[in-house]
Amino acid sequence: MNYDQVFDSAIERLHSEGRYRVFIDILRNKGAYPNARCFAGHNGPKPITVWCSNDYLAMGQHPKVIEAMEEALHNVGAGSGGTRNIGGNTHYHIQLEGELADLHGKDGALLFTSGYVSNDATLSTLAKILPGCVIFSDELNHASMIAGIRNSGAEKKVFRHNDVEHLEELLAETDPSVPKLIAFESVYSMDGDVAPIHAICDLAEKYNALTYIDEVHAVGMYGPRGGGITDRDQAAHRIDIIEGTLGKAFGVMGGYIAADTRIIDVIRSYAPGFIFTTSLSPVLVAGVLASVRHLKSSSVEREGQQASAAFLKKSLADAGLPVMPSTTHIVPLMVGDPIRAKKIADILLAEYGVYVQPINYPTVPRGTERLRFTPGPSHTEAMMTELTEALVEIWQRMELELQQAA
Amino acid sequence: MNYDQVFDSAIERLHSEGRYRVFIDILRNKGAYPNARCFAGHNGPKPITVWCSNDYLAMGQHPKVIEAMEEALHNVGAGSGGTRNIGGNTHYHIQLEGELADLHGKDGALLFTSGYVSNDATLSTLAKILPGCVIFSDELNHASMIAGIRNSGAEKKVFRHNDVEHLEELLAETDPSVPKLIAFESVYSMDGDVAPIHAICDLAEKYNALTYIDEVHAVGMYGPRGGGITDRDQAAHRIDIIEGTLGKAFGVMGGYIAADTRIIDVIRSYAPGFIFTTSLSPVLVAGVLASVRHLKSSSVEREGQQASAAFLKKSLADAGLPVMPSTTHIVPLMVGDPIRAKKIADILLAEYGVYVQPINYPTVPRGTERLRFTPGPSHTEAMMTELTEALVEIWQRMELELQQAA
Repeated sequence: MNYDQVFDSAIERLHSEGRYRVFIDILRNKGAYPNARCFAGHNGPKPITVWCSNDYLAMGQHPKVIEAMEEALHNVGAGSGGTRNIGGNTHYHIQLEGELADLHGKDGALLFTSGYVSNDATLSTLAKILPGCVIFSDELNHASMIAGIRNSGAEKKVFRHNDVEHLEELLAETDPSVPKLIAFESVYSMDGDVAPIHAICDLAEKYNALTYIDEVHAVGMYGPRGGGITDRDQAAHRIDIIEGTLGKAFGVMGGYIAADTRIIDVIRSYAPGFIFTTSLSPVLVAGVLASVRHLKSSSVEREGQQASAAFLKKSLADAGLPVMPSTTHIVPLMVGDPIRAKKIADILLAEYGVYVQPINYPTVPRGTERLRFTPGPSHTEAMMTELTEALVEIWQRMELELQQAA
Repeated sequence: MNYDQVFDSAIERLHSEGRYRVFIDILRNKGAYPNARCFAGHNGPKPITVWCSNDYLAMGQHPKVIEAMEEALHNVGAGSGGTRNIGGNTHYHIQLEGELADLHGKDGALLFTSGYVSNDATLSTLAKILPGCVIFSDELNHASMIAGIRNSGAEKKVFRHNDVEHLEELLAETDPSVPKLIAFESVYSMDGDVAPIHAICDLAEKYNALTYIDEVHAVGMYGPRGGGITDRDQAAHRIDIIEGTLGKAFGVMGGYIAADTRIIDVIRSYAPGFIFTTSLSPVLVAGVLASVRHLKSSSVEREGQQASAAFLKKSLADAGLPVMPSTTHIVPLMVGDPIRAKKIADILLAEYGVYVQPINYPTVPRGTERLRFTPGPSHTEAMMTELTEALVEIWQRMELELQQAA
């Protein structure tokens, strides 16, 4: 057994497929987002514009968030010092869980160290608590949901993306007496489309299934209080478990679920990924508290983001660039090849100071490699026009097809 | 299918076994550790002394750590805004990985959002990359290692705790041609004993197995630079992968592995739990950087902790209390029953302002429920003497056995 050889060939596979990842070394400039500094190469920091951040509303830069974190830092210190059960349960954690429960109109909420962990821990534990549970999973569900479902050991039935008829077929063919869980997302992050939530809830009621929705690309950004698509579409009360992140629109880090206290108590008591880990730093929790509270009452950030997204989509489409039909704030541009996607991104960074990460397999299916732009309230129309011009120039230079302008 | 009934009975099981967990609601007082405030009940905040924190060296309160976090907060903002690959790779992350690689004398290191995730992601991915891999796991390994091993789908052979002969038996009976991985901890957190690292490495060499050590309860605290037991025992070069936490002795939050760059590259490229999650907040990373650098050159904290642990162990033993034979900074007191352990902890908190969490199944085996004290450099001899007196009083009140004093 030659271990090095196995490891080398695993890495070589990535190089040969053009999807070996090089992390871009950046520092954002607080107060000047989306501007940042890039440390790649040896020519010292270079100014760039960030186009692929999931700090969608720039809340990670918001004065209220910064101030709350600074205050907590000086009040209680850096880390929590323990698991939630052993020394790591602070007053901040309890307050934030109350705030998040309220955001989604639920009795309870539970914090995790990340959205990934919240999906993995909750889905795997739920299905273990419900013997014989069958999980119905949208084919484009996030890797963390897939991990949780796999780790549960439960039977999984995958339905075609957003296809309610296919979901019903699968539900109808399943033993009516076994526990069922439908797991899906509200906003799919790589395409920017939205699930038919009410139609899925209708089926859940008809077939007595629990519902689990991942709203990580929606919380903070949709609904009058930022409760996500379930808030916008008044569907929260029809969903058993709403999962969200604190690391995207809320601008900090961490994940959570909101649900009936009974479900919260079960996950809190049985999920190893919740029990056996140091709790979120109170500094982060304090920042999120300020962020959630702000976005419950302020819609300026949400409106700015939607305006930017609409402007950029139109600008790219008018120029004939292959922008994908997103109905949300996410603006994906189809390339369809990993090497070409990386080359375009490299030129954008080197020549235009534009930072956008090429999205490759396994994040998206092979052959659908893309650039994914996330314009926010701080991206100006001038920036977006310049971006479109840069892309058109690169498209022409690389002799890629531009569609007939509308 | 009545879901509520299933959930209710799952919770009822915990109540009936006396191990339903109630989280104590506390806030630490920065600069005055181990003092804190407790919010339980309705009588407002009450001063307490924390005896069960894993912020072992009080680095979560260290001025250098607080200052570094404050600076990062004002330099770049709250969150990283993305995964390591998509917008969330900052200069801080790269610097910290360099610092941690150096701490363990390895070529590379990789950050995770927690120690739990680093164990789960690394172990599950490694075993998938090595087809047919058999994992040899100490029976007292942490839940996160067990999760990683289970999630890998690899064959697992459990050896009796710290039992090198049993490990050799299992290695010898395994096909010499298949990949092998020995996974163990250096300091076992609930007993405070230490693994025979060199003897295990001898076996790994003899049977051509990779070695994986969890040093979360040792990094920062052992070795001349705080590299853990492998640093103290000059064994780091014999271990393939050293895993550590940033949330205990380093006082902040997060986890990592240090290893050969080849292994780091494989995990970085293939582990879903690393790839598909928002990276650690740069604020946390900046704090850890300061903490690791400080503990590389300062031994005052380590010496203070060892002195406190020695004092408390002697004080408890002299009083005839059933202190367990720990050889480290961890001071467990055997109770052997979950209801009694909780009652002792409740009296300590209510009457003595002493906060120590009872440790129940599944954290420890049933019948070995205990109180686990973690004295640090900030716990004074007067505090420890008072603690011993309180415990003796409770032991007598509850008519528990006191051993003959030495």
